[in-house]
Amino acid sequence: MTTDIEIARAATLRPMPEIAAKLDIPEEALIPYGRDKAKLDAAYIDGLNGRDPGKLILVTAISPTPAGEGKTTTTVGLGDGLARIGKRTAICIREASLGPNFGMKGGAAGGGRAQVVPMESMNLHFTGDFHAIGAAHNLLAAMIDNHIYWGNSLEIDERRVSWKRVVDMNDRALRDIVVSLGGVANGFPRQTGFDITVASEVMACLCLSRDLAELQERLGRIVVAYRRDRSPITCADIGADGAMVVLLKDAMQPNLVQTLEGTPAFVHGGPFANIAHGCNSVIATQSALKLADYVVTEAGFGADLGAEKFFDIKCRKAGLTPSAAVVVATVRALKMNGGVAKADLGEENVAAVEKGCANLARHIANTKGFGVPVVVAINHFTADTEAEIAAVRAAAEAQGVEAVLCTHWADGGAGAEALAETIVALTEGASHFAPLYPDDMSLFEKIETIARRIYHAGEVIADKKIRDQLRDWEAAGYRDLPICMAKTQYSFSSDPALIGAPEGHTLPIREVRLSAGAGFVVVICGEIMTMPGLPRHPAAEKIGLDDEGRITGLF
Amino acid sequence: MTTDIEIARAATLRPMPEIAAKLDIPEEALIPYGRDKAKLDAAYIDGLNGRDPGKLILVTAISPTPAGEGKTTTTVGLGDGLARIGKRTAICIREASLGPNFGMKGGAAGGGRAQVVPMESMNLHFTGDFHAIGAAHNLLAAMIDNHIYWGNSLEIDERRVSWKRVVDMNDRALRDIVVSLGGVANGFPRQTGFDITVASEVMACLCLSRDLAELQERLGRIVVAYRRDRSPITCADIGADGAMVVLLKDAMQPNLVQTLEGTPAFVHGGPFANIAHGCNSVIATQSALKLADYVVTEAGFGADLGAEKFFDIKCRKAGLTPSAAVVVATVRALKMNGGVAKADLGEENVAAVEKGCANLARHIANTKGFGVPVVVAINHFTADTEAEIAAVRAAAEAQGVEAVLCTHWADGGAGAEALAETIVALTEGASHFAPLYPDDMSLFEKIETIARRIYHAGEVIADKKIRDQLRDWEAAGYRDLPICMAKTQYSFSSDPALIGAPEGHTLPIREVRLSAGAGFVVVICGEIMTMPGLPRHPAAEKIGLDDEGRITGLF
Repeated sequence: MTTDIEIARAATLRPMPEIAAKLDIPEEALIPYGRDKAKLDAAYIDGLNGRDPGKLILVTAISPTPAGEGKTTTTVGLGDGLARIGKRTAICIREASLGPNFGMKGGAAGGGRAQVVPMESMNLHFTGDFHAIGAAHNLLAAMIDNHIYWGNSLEIDERRVSWKRVVDMNDRALRDIVVSLGGVANGFPRQTGFDITVASEVMACLCLSRDLAELQERLGRIVVAYRRDRSPITCADIGADGAMVVLLKDAMQPNLVQTLEGTPAFVHGGPFANIAHGCNSVIATQSALKLADYVVTEAGFGADLGAEKFFDIKCRKAGLTPSAAVVVATVRALKMNGGVAKADLGEENVAAVEKGCANLARHIANTKGFGVPVVVAINHFTADTEAEIAAVRAAAEAQGVEAVLCTHWADGGAGAEALAETIVALTEGASHFAPLYPDDMSLFEKIETIARRIYHAGEVIADKKIRDQLRDWEAAGYRDLPICMAKTQYSFSSDPALIGAPEGHTLPIREVRLSAGAGFVVVICGEIMTMPGLPRHPAAEKIGLDDEGRITGLF
Repeated sequence: MTTDIEIARAATLRPMPEIAAKLDIPEEALIPYGRDKAKLDAAYIDGLNGRDPGKLILVTAISPTPAGEGKTTTTVGLGDGLARIGKRTAICIREASLGPNFGMKGGAAGGGRAQVVPMESMNLHFTGDFHAIGAAHNLLAAMIDNHIYWGNSLEIDERRVSWKRVVDMNDRALRDIVVSLGGVANGFPRQTGFDITVASEVMACLCLSRDLAELQERLGRIVVAYRRDRSPITCADIGADGAMVVLLKDAMQPNLVQTLEGTPAFVHGGPFANIAHGCNSVIATQSALKLADYVVTEAGFGADLGAEKFFDIKCRKAGLTPSAAVVVATVRALKMNGGVAKADLGEENVAAVEKGCANLARHIANTKGFGVPVVVAINHFTADTEAEIAAVRAAAEAQGVEAVLCTHWADGGAGAEALAETIVALTEGASHFAPLYPDDMSLFEKIETIARRIYHAGEVIADKKIRDQLRDWEAAGYRDLPICMAKTQYSFSSDPALIGAPEGHTLPIREVRLSAGAGFVVVICGEIMTMPGLPRHPAAEKIGLDDEGRITGLF
């Protein structure tokens, strides 16, 4: 069998001006980065203002399982499918984090014949955006400790510095550290740590800003520390926002690459999907919408987290109106949601598929609840049987939506033409999109709304400290912020073992965090890791160059 | 007066293919990075093998003072001057470190009408090389702690891990830290720290390697830790060298930009000039020599450090034969070397110039001692008087070398045409270049040779521990390595206050370090800072974008 990397390497990439021309982007608007990547010039993007937007299609999925559902693959396949049926199409996905590639084998962008290329560069430094985000983040950190060092006129409580440092590497040794040891010249010792770069609030700010001016405002609002009286100190108080935006000037320009079939793909931004909203940048999505008639994008994790945040955070804040949503499912993943062990996935098991479809059904209902037309994409695996596929179709029809069998992994865009036709039909009418909750609802009520309506939880548990914290933030002017839920992606509940469609469970809130720059309140339910570690035998041990200078072991 | 940044911004940059064509580099050999930067394709560089090299001109200087001597400016001016008189010329200089720009105002590459552009990008992320070096360095660090975490089969003594982490930021809080706090899941607590990225041995390895294969060998040889029995553990033992070279694949390709007058400039690599050798990459210099008839390059600090390391480390290891050296001096800096305070530099003071010329004379004699023809470039300031300039000429003539007055800062390449003509004449004969000491001399004798012949020190002081360490390394196979001296740049001695040309001083060795990957023994005389801090009011506070989106406060 041909692997993803073999397919990607065998591809002949088209010159970037040719890809751009598909969206009538002139060559002068491209800033080349290598031979097969370009950034879109900021001045050109400004000039797009006032254009009518195209239709925005969200690709989301059932609750993930180790069997895989193929969300990115379907995003790419649908984009290629729309292009094949003559629609002016662009894809918008996230950039990959560098560090995790050295732990486990790296993830491609898509798979099979539905991939975005150049795959190797996209999994390494790409256009340097994440390095720029790391530098901006760490400049702010250095300026905070420097402010304390030179007299601390802002009266920062050294025990209450919430701004950590970041590195794009899986490095557990940096999770919890003490800095400024070694005497007077090195500052005041205090305990802190590093997160991985994609967990940086700078990343979330960049991804939610329409332009550099908004980015600077968001950066300036980031709360970095507190005084002894608990009053907050912001990035603007430290005076770092201007220099940070200078470091992010190039990173703010969306990256343009291509699918294997030459469909334009914007790959830009990559915020964590737990403590942040997990979607590509607003500026990429908005630019794509002004350039294409159909824009296919995706959101992290299953629809309970990814689609909910896409709608309630990204669309709400950026004023986007999604025209349709695709819920991706595989027979294999539905079987696992129906209780089948991974080793037994090769056997036909219609009953397990039917059972697992409870998960699919709830994701469909939830997504429809946002007023957006829904279609199910069955991402086909060769072992799927007719009866199993029929069971998925029946479950979708019971929710009033169509399920379309897709073979883009094996066949590229041709395998998603039927899905593309369905999307065109679905989006002919007006969208009735509305977020789940109004801005002016209290923070705790917003959490309860998500828990009850999306997760089907019976109750939300939070101790007094957390409820008081939420009320304090409301009093400080943060009541209008949306909620960013951080919980396991494997279940509607906070317990990863509770697969399927659990009802009446309890959602315990462990911690709440204010991301005042990004503009949301993070609600943490369960253990959330913001700095991964490396496994016993990291992939890095096998990564290298072969005799012909090609990268091995990365994929 | 027009500032450097105003001049740089007013310049119309020529398209990169036009710059490359001056060296007959075909457009296909360029990998574009933005509109005005390109990398030279590795395969194209391989294809240059076997070509006869052009002439290599080193630009070095007297001992630096706060008055400035203008080494980079003269490198650029001479390059433009050679181009103006019809010579096929390239310039090779170092890349700038990002972090320090946020402390003090950033340094341009050159000044006045003798600059390399695009200046802003070169002082920010440029083509991402330093970010790649940081990532490779920190991957190795993460893998060391990960190895210990998962059972430590190599038996690393956690107290003797010499490999620190790096960040391209001035951040004193990270100099001395304790990592792996917080319990079992985060590893074994130990004390370590961060250096600034340019101090990484990965940087030195990249800058001394001819190709990726040699780079991987050097990375593999880096000593990262010791066992309890003091036996060394290398990067190859950890298994990180392959993945590191993958991270550095693009960074290894030299960057091509241009001077204000359109002369091709390779800007690649930037190792520290104290704990490393302080020159641009071997691969850039060697590529330039195969493409141009004259290659003008520079080395860090004054000639006692910069030129000595250029000759004894870079030229020795890469098999380069320099054809001539330019010693840059300014009347102002000579006056300061003659004892004049900075406030009094505006007054004519021929006696002080004559006194300061003792410093110039020794640098000339030292440089001639390597068998390389020498010329003095007097980098002209408007306040210089005829009599002062005559004094410099006389001092040079007393050493048997010509001193040429240069006005490239004000006039661009036209102001360095006379210097260019002198260089052409000087390099018509064969160079008799030879390093200062043979490979097989003992390490301590090498140190003494540099101290006596270059610094005119009376004796070298080192305690038994240091002498034993050097002997241990000799026994372990490192006897053939050259020495990399780390001492103050402001004096021939280790005392920065001892200006002019001190004789018979004592050189105290504080510490020796093995850079087995880079391939030298670092000898530290005095305090060497490998992680700078930010000042009370860092430049970052004033850096930002103006209403037209231009960067302010960086320069």
